[in-house]
Amino acid sequence: MPVGLVPTMGFLHDGHLSLVDLARRQNSSVITTIFVNPTQFGPQEDLEGYPRDIPRDLELLEKRGVDLVWIPDREEMYSKGFQTWVTVDDVTRFLEGKMRPGHFRGVTTIVAKLFNAVMPDKAYFGQKDAQQVVVLRRMVMDLNYPIEIVVAPIVREEDGLAMSSRNVYLNPAERQAATVLFRALKTADQAFKAGNRDADGLKRIMEEIISSEELANLQYISCADMDSLEELSGQVNRGLLSMAVFIGKTRLIDNILIGI
Amino acid sequence: MPVGLVPTMGFLHDGHLSLVDLARRQNSSVITTIFVNPTQFGPQEDLEGYPRDIPRDLELLEKRGVDLVWIPDREEMYSKGFQTWVTVDDVTRFLEGKMRPGHFRGVTTIVAKLFNAVMPDKAYFGQKDAQQVVVLRRMVMDLNYPIEIVVAPIVREEDGLAMSSRNVYLNPAERQAATVLFRALKTADQAFKAGNRDADGLKRIMEEIISSEELANLQYISCADMDSLEELSGQVNRGLLSMAVFIGKTRLIDNILIGI
Repeated sequence: MPVGLVPTMGFLHDGHLSLVDLARRQNSSVITTIFVNPTQFGPQEDLEGYPRDIPRDLELLEKRGVDLVWIPDREEMYSKGFQTWVTVDDVTRFLEGKMRPGHFRGVTTIVAKLFNAVMPDKAYFGQKDAQQVVVLRRMVMDLNYPIEIVVAPIVREEDGLAMSSRNVYLNPAERQAATVLFRALKTADQAFKAGNRDADGLKRIMEEIISSEELANLQYISCADMDSLEELSGQVNRGLLSMAVFIGKTRLIDNILIGI
Repeated sequence: MPVGLVPTMGFLHDGHLSLVDLARRQNSSVITTIFVNPTQFGPQEDLEGYPRDIPRDLELLEKRGVDLVWIPDREEMYSKGFQTWVTVDDVTRFLEGKMRPGHFRGVTTIVAKLFNAVMPDKAYFGQKDAQQVVVLRRMVMDLNYPIEIVVAPIVREEDGLAMSSRNVYLNPAERQAATVLFRALKTADQAFKAGNRDADGLKRIMEEIISSEELANLQYISCADMDSLEELSGQVNRGLLSMAVFIGKTRLIDNILIGI
């Protein structure tokens, strides 16, 4: 009687729903949580503006046959005197962890809380947040959680933009410009497949494409080891290409695995 | 069908066995773990010399009707690349946490691991480690563990010395001197019951008794709030009297609750 958990921050899109569908196929019970977790947002980030639409989310989840939706409020999750944190050290030092100090401490703490409260057999996360998957797998291993982390591929719009609740922030011109992330990743992937295996060369290819888009402002670009997330150099046989790009004021991330 | 967990570091004494007996009465299954957890020892502490006697422990636990004894080895609990920690902030800043930096991070991490692996309904700890109880209760609350922390009273030798695996370090003269901890606590408790409610006055009473014992070297003495563990001053209605005292090279702790 396996129980599947799909933790979300709500404002669901087809990426979330692909996780729900996968969980539905693999479990006899599916629980979805909706919680915009304040501790994973930095002080300058979009916690208060984060998009919310609970009635629509509930309708979507009901149609997909979710058994239980848990929508805790902030005071329930972080009551007076809260002071306990779960931290993963090494793999949080890079990429998103470097750009968003404290972000992963918030993620691992809330996911540990959800795991403890729900005690699922499997938990579902999207490859869109590639580092989050690495961090949570490490947490599960290190803390002896008897839970399988199941990862589903990135779901994209027809023009390649990775689905994200934050895409709603984009105006029409920005929405068009936002396709540049996947164009850069795909071009580097094609170059890799054509035999260009130099990490710096692949990053240069992506940088050039990002810089050709006027509305795009590159925050970081990376070719990293898939497990340790350490930056690679020289010839690579496999790796995680990832980036964070501001399109106007909206920060987008995307990634692609090469060599697997 | 409740499951009770009694985590220990082995070299069992009647204090541990009182926890096992209580767990046996309250659960249909009782699991005891024996693991000398390296991450809760400081670099100058007694990790390698910590007393061990697994055959004797197993015999004692079998007699008490424990269903399962889990004795993980170090590599099993802290495998290559281990990097995840559970930390409780505020209540670990005082007392033992202040004297033993990193100690409670080790305790909360290993207990979280045992909780996740065993998924007990109740877990048993001794009041001897009074701060540990406060820290673990906070962890359970903050991280949504559906586990009840059950605390059993300190078990003492006939002359009042609190049972501890470390008492084996004491030579005969030190063993005699070690009774000074409980004598100090008991005298302060009697003064409190007789109407002396001044925190500093109670601490002075204990200090004088400790300093009268030549082999004793006081590390700290405290009259603290039972929940926050913050040091109290002025008139107190209830509190935790606690101390750490070196008897020769052996560090002993003891405590008593007043006003409850």
